[in-house]
Amino acid sequence: MIKAGIMGATGYAGAEVLRICASHPEFEVAVITSDSEAGQQIADIYPAFHGVYDNLVLEPHATDSLLSCDVVFMGVPHKAGMLHAPRLVEAGVTCIDLSADFRFAHAADYEAAYHVQHAAPELLERATFGQPETNRAALDELAARHAAGEAVIVGCAGCYVTASILAATPALAAGFVNPNAPIIVDAISGITGAGRKPSARTHYCSGDESLEAYGLPLHRHQPEIALSYGRTLSDAHTPVAGDASVRPAPAHVIFTPHLAPLKRGILATVYLPLAKDAEINDASLHRAYEKAYAKSNLVTALPQGVWPKTGAVAGTARAHVNASLNPNERMIVAMAAIDNLGKGAAGQAVQCANIVFGLAEDAGLGGVACAS
Amino acid sequence: MIKAGIMGATGYAGAEVLRICASHPEFEVAVITSDSEAGQQIADIYPAFHGVYDNLVLEPHATDSLLSCDVVFMGVPHKAGMLHAPRLVEAGVTCIDLSADFRFAHAADYEAAYHVQHAAPELLERATFGQPETNRAALDELAARHAAGEAVIVGCAGCYVTASILAATPALAAGFVNPNAPIIVDAISGITGAGRKPSARTHYCSGDESLEAYGLPLHRHQPEIALSYGRTLSDAHTPVAGDASVRPAPAHVIFTPHLAPLKRGILATVYLPLAKDAEINDASLHRAYEKAYAKSNLVTALPQGVWPKTGAVAGTARAHVNASLNPNERMIVAMAAIDNLGKGAAGQAVQCANIVFGLAEDAGLGGVACAS
Amino acid sequence: MIKAGIMGATGYAGAEVLRICASHPEFEVAVITSDSEAGQQIADIYPAFHGVYDNLVLEPHATDSLLSCDVVFMGVPHKAGMLHAPRLVEAGVTCIDLSADFRFAHAADYEAAYHVQHAAPELLERATFGQPETNRAALDELAARHAAGEAVIVGCAGCYVTASILAATPALAAGFVNPNAPIIVDAISGITGAGRKPSARTHYCSGDESLEAYGLPLHRHQPEIALSYGRTLSDAHTPVAGDASVRPAPAHVIFTPHLAPLKRGILATVYLPLAKDAEINDASLHRAYEKAYAKSNLVTALPQGVWPKTGAVAGTARAHVNASLNPNERMIVAMAAIDNLGKGAAGQAVQCANIVFGLAEDAGLGGVACAS
Amino acid sequence: MIKAGIMGATGYAGAEVLRICASHPEFEVAVITSDSEAGQQIADIYPAFHGVYDNLVLEPHATDSLLSCDVVFMGVPHKAGMLHAPRLVEAGVTCIDLSADFRFAHAADYEAAYHVQHAAPELLERATFGQPETNRAALDELAARHAAGEAVIVGCAGCYVTASILAATPALAAGFVNPNAPIIVDAISGITGAGRKPSARTHYCSGDESLEAYGLPLHRHQPEIALSYGRTLSDAHTPVAGDASVRPAPAHVIFTPHLAPLKRGILATVYLPLAKDAEINDASLHRAYEKAYAKSNLVTALPQGVWPKTGAVAGTARAHVNASLNPNERMIVAMAAIDNLGKGAAGQAVQCANIVFGLAEDAGLGGVACAS
Repeated sequence: MIKAGIMGATGYAGAEVLRICASHPEFEVAVITSDSEAGQQIADIYPAFHGVYDNLVLEPHATDSLLSCDVVFMGVPHKAGMLHAPRLVEAGVTCIDLSADFRFAHAADYEAAYHVQHAAPELLERATFGQPETNRAALDELAARHAAGEAVIVGCAGCYVTASILAATPALAAGFVNPNAPIIVDAISGITGAGRKPSARTHYCSGDESLEAYGLPLHRHQPEIALSYGRTLSDAHTPVAGDASVRPAPAHVIFTPHLAPLKRGILATVYLPLAKDAEINDASLHRAYEKAYAKSNLVTALPQGVWPKTGAVAGTARAHVNASLNPNERMIVAMAAIDNLGKGAAGQAVQCANIVFGLAEDAGLGGVACAS
Repeated sequence: MIKAGIMGATGYAGAEVLRICASHPEFEVAVITSDSEAGQQIADIYPAFHGVYDNLVLEPHATDSLLSCDVVFMGVPHKAGMLHAPRLVEAGVTCIDLSADFRFAHAADYEAAYHVQHAAPELLERATFGQPETNRAALDELAARHAAGEAVIVGCAGCYVTASILAATPALAAGFVNPNAPIIVDAISGITGAGRKPSARTHYCSGDESLEAYGLPLHRHQPEIALSYGRTLSDAHTPVAGDASVRPAPAHVIFTPHLAPLKRGILATVYLPLAKDAEINDASLHRAYEKAYAKSNLVTALPQGVWPKTGAVAGTARAHVNASLNPNERMIVAMAAIDNLGKGAAGQAVQCANIVFGLAEDAGLGGVACAS
Repeated sequence: MIKAGIMGATGYAGAEVLRICASHPEFEVAVITSDSEAGQQIADIYPAFHGVYDNLVLEPHATDSLLSCDVVFMGVPHKAGMLHAPRLVEAGVTCIDLSADFRFAHAADYEAAYHVQHAAPELLERATFGQPETNRAALDELAARHAAGEAVIVGCAGCYVTASILAATPALAAGFVNPNAPIIVDAISGITGAGRKPSARTHYCSGDESLEAYGLPLHRHQPEIALSYGRTLSDAHTPVAGDASVRPAPAHVIFTPHLAPLKRGILATVYLPLAKDAEINDASLHRAYEKAYAKSNLVTALPQGVWPKTGAVAGTARAHVNASLNPNERMIVAMAAIDNLGKGAAGQAVQCANIVFGLAEDAGLGGVACAS
Repeated sequence: MIKAGIMGATGYAGAEVLRICASHPEFEVAVITSDSEAGQQIADIYPAFHGVYDNLVLEPHATDSLLSCDVVFMGVPHKAGMLHAPRLVEAGVTCIDLSADFRFAHAADYEAAYHVQHAAPELLERATFGQPETNRAALDELAARHAAGEAVIVGCAGCYVTASILAATPALAAGFVNPNAPIIVDAISGITGAGRKPSARTHYCSGDESLEAYGLPLHRHQPEIALSYGRTLSDAHTPVAGDASVRPAPAHVIFTPHLAPLKRGILATVYLPLAKDAEINDASLHRAYEKAYAKSNLVTALPQGVWPKTGAVAGTARAHVNASLNPNERMIVAMAAIDNLGKGAAGQAVQCANIVFGLAEDAGLGGVACAS
């Protein structure tokens, strides 16, 4: 077994890593931490863990117990990830960070998006963006360094970004999309996305039976989407794509997140204007999506004409994706459905850890959503 | 009292008219009809009416009882509206039709959108599109004809169309929007929008805890939105706007409806590309919205930076609207929240009837959404 | 118009009084108070009030503005009601208290149930228990004192107690029930019952898709139910019932509240063991219920065999009630459905105020639940 | 691998068996059947199976493919189970029946409860009631017969019955309960309990935001609860308990099921009157519950004072149980929370199959509920 720790195990994403690990063939959780709830048993906080993790007690983040783990999943907020990672890496512990702190290759991009100075820029060279379906080669490279004994870091893609990338990348990568026109990402999220902290917005009686947008006009995850799209567009449209020293411009992205009354799920609807010279139809568009995800065990391009439904992936690390063409307006409408805590956070974190540790990428992630 | 009938009172929209009329100062429901459930009491179908309409029995649509009404609200599906209206109009009964049959000024537009021949095109000249905030002058004209003894028809705007119009019209009318670029309408609806008929999609266990899109790539309500936007754009951008003989082109509209787990509510998010010469900022944009709805008792432009929430208008004929500018991409993001059965159907129908009968437009519609 | 104030207008019950008064023919809200949110506009807190109460600003509870009101609805928690009432009564203001502070005729009973000393026992003689269907004579007497110029107090029944009383009283009063055997009240509540304060329990993601009990083994509202049932049993079974100096013993009541994922609604299921000599059948039992509520505009005994559904009374001051006999076990199973904030709080408070002010008891309360 | 078939795989319980088997170490689903949807792919019906069971096609129930399975899970309704079982058993196929047809040891009890003649009474001697925590010895005996080559049948306990048994059995078995006084089982179910067939009751807009009871006064599952309780009471209170030829009387049980707005979950609250001579307190009562489930991997007696929450077991084969004493009324209030399709149907079916096939009882059932 691989000894795992979870920092921030009382947050929704951390608790979901804990849940997944209960059925994982290799990762065994030995340490869980929380600064505000240290000393409590996890089952007192999440009753689903009664009878499962009955004696797992929360320690403070600073505990030395983490240093003896093989891997630590970091479910702490951004800014906390980069504060704790140096100590862990120094002790040889590989970090799977669910925060934003190690998602950006360049500290400047992080700093521009999150309005804070990066505390550990020297660690960025051993970190890779954790979105396996679109960044697998870099993760495999990281796995090789890990196999050679190096402590490495994965900066896992967040939930909105994952859904946005999965929906759009096949079209962007195929060169179907105009790189100069605005791309609209209109996403709807369940309420776990707002975190565990009780607030007026997360009160049952505010969220239930209502729909609302938030975070306008410029949500803080917009830059991550724009950078990812920009890189894919650049790879597709310009010859220097292979040159890592080139930093492609972010794409033109308008991102509007909405909140709907459900616990888990993100449905991202992405409007991609066709490139001037793109000659595609619904069938060829669909083939591009099928091909893009043909090798993935976790991401499925649905049959043509079938649209993703978040309920069909809830509680899992799976994603459903599809796209169609609006020929009148020369626009691709693409969608992805994920569980924001599954494929959008903890599930993808475990998938990245699986890759880094040389396991099957879907080890422990074979669960299927409740059909009803 | 004004004697009212409701055709199709067992559908969600018809039942909502019945509910509103229970508190209306003038409309008294004397006749309700349903072909499939004739003979039953309405309270057996909708238990909310126990103790309210205990002895109201459903008659078939063909009942002569309707002919003695002053007004009939027609909550039947499209195609049924135009079949029943002639008999009612001939008997001097004013019709407030909630179906699509009398929404279009030109039968050809109806036929193109709904793929069926119009059965009563001769009635179109006494019919007007029922969206009071943007078509008030025509409704006032209809009221004058009604006051002069004529039986008239209102073809009430549907739920998606109402939300789309309320969100976008102030920007379109102000000339802020590029008439040649695609406008995206991304809307989320509650499940009453799918109607009362039980189906796999409306089963609790399909709708609950899930999000999905439907009706792609070309939903049948898209033409209504495109025609309305097209007319407003034409009025704003071309000098011949006042000339009724000119039929403006439909706008470039991409419309994607989504389904979310709640009973009532539509949130429409509309992406409007700025006209090339438009020089606006968030404040001037907001002023245009405030001005557009300043005189309305039922539609409110929210304070700058406050976004509509469907829960805040659920169960009412009210609408909340707002807009902001994305200056980077020169795009207006506008939103409207309505109750699809309230302002989106029955509430707007009663509002139209109020206008036609010379009452205050919000008579019987003063109800406020449950704050929690 | 009657000038009304609302103390604690930001709590769910207070806000519901505000909502009801928006459509009330006589009560006009002139003052709203909140200590923690003084200075804010109510629409900033509850967006449903945008366009309705746009300029109503919260004042602190101690404001003198309340002293010029004709009536003050007190939506503050228990202990706060009895602290503020003396000042108001002294100023001649009638108080409709939604807290527990004036529900008990005897301070000792209050103190035993709520474990706190009563701060204004001298006011109890001008206070009456506010449950109109079962205590109308006393409310009428209070109305007479009010008409004679006295400032009076109504201690409105709470939500669980109202549902429990409405479900059981017809059977208890008819002498059908064994006064010596335990009566079980098993109730399910929506989450507004837990109040507006955000907490782990009221977080959307805790309440959604789950059922749980709470407050066992002895919930603080149990004594109110037991006292009410005890009085009715005593009136039915003992000749001294009319003698007000007799304090009947509380009934044997086991009360278990549950929480379910909805905003509003209480369904109380009450198990009443038959008296030894009771000779009833389903029909005679049902007749007793019909008779008990025949004159009420707001409480309806449903047809035999039709069971109450909280959705059919949500958002209203109505109640649906029914009962049936389990002949094998000689047990009556009775149920009532109410909206905990409607008939269970604000709606009943307005109903009581209507009675005290000599209005129709259902003035402003004619609203019907959304049928869908 | 053990080759499994699922009859009625399109019903909720059958589909849940299919879902569980996707992660089961031994059972591999080779055949799925449905008469009404034969020929379709299962993923077309339940989109959660896209990417999981992409090519699994439904065959009619009569297919010979079932005869080559090692085990068939029968998710068909009662009456269908006993029609199909003979053919399967004759072919040597062990049947795990989720219907009521093989739950009763005596055909007469089945016939009295379900008002239909038993079609295969000769199979009852090779069938056992499938509730492992309270009938393990009989299931082990069945496993021995199966190991010896016999095709056997498990008649799995239903959802309400499982929750009722798990909540009450420790108290009943300990002799704490008065066998002559009525026991009240008040249960709340999610809407999957009403089945997949669309109907007025299962429409989203009927179930959402509402609570209701149904099936009064005598629900068809009452006899199963009464027989189970009666047997346990008899074992606890009478010396002939070990004598299988004695048929103990059913207990006095009043059962009221309620429907609440969630997909999955049953919370059963059971009111058990203390036996006259029972001398217990909360601590000794709790110890009895802990002891009863100490060896179970799937049923957990929660810590004293912690009440079950269905969300904590949703999507799993787990159960949470607890009890407390109301000393004033000498009543035990016991509760169990299960997922009606998990521990209440498919999960328990797989648990029974595990036992019959000599596997760990929780093989493939280690999943944990989503903590949020």
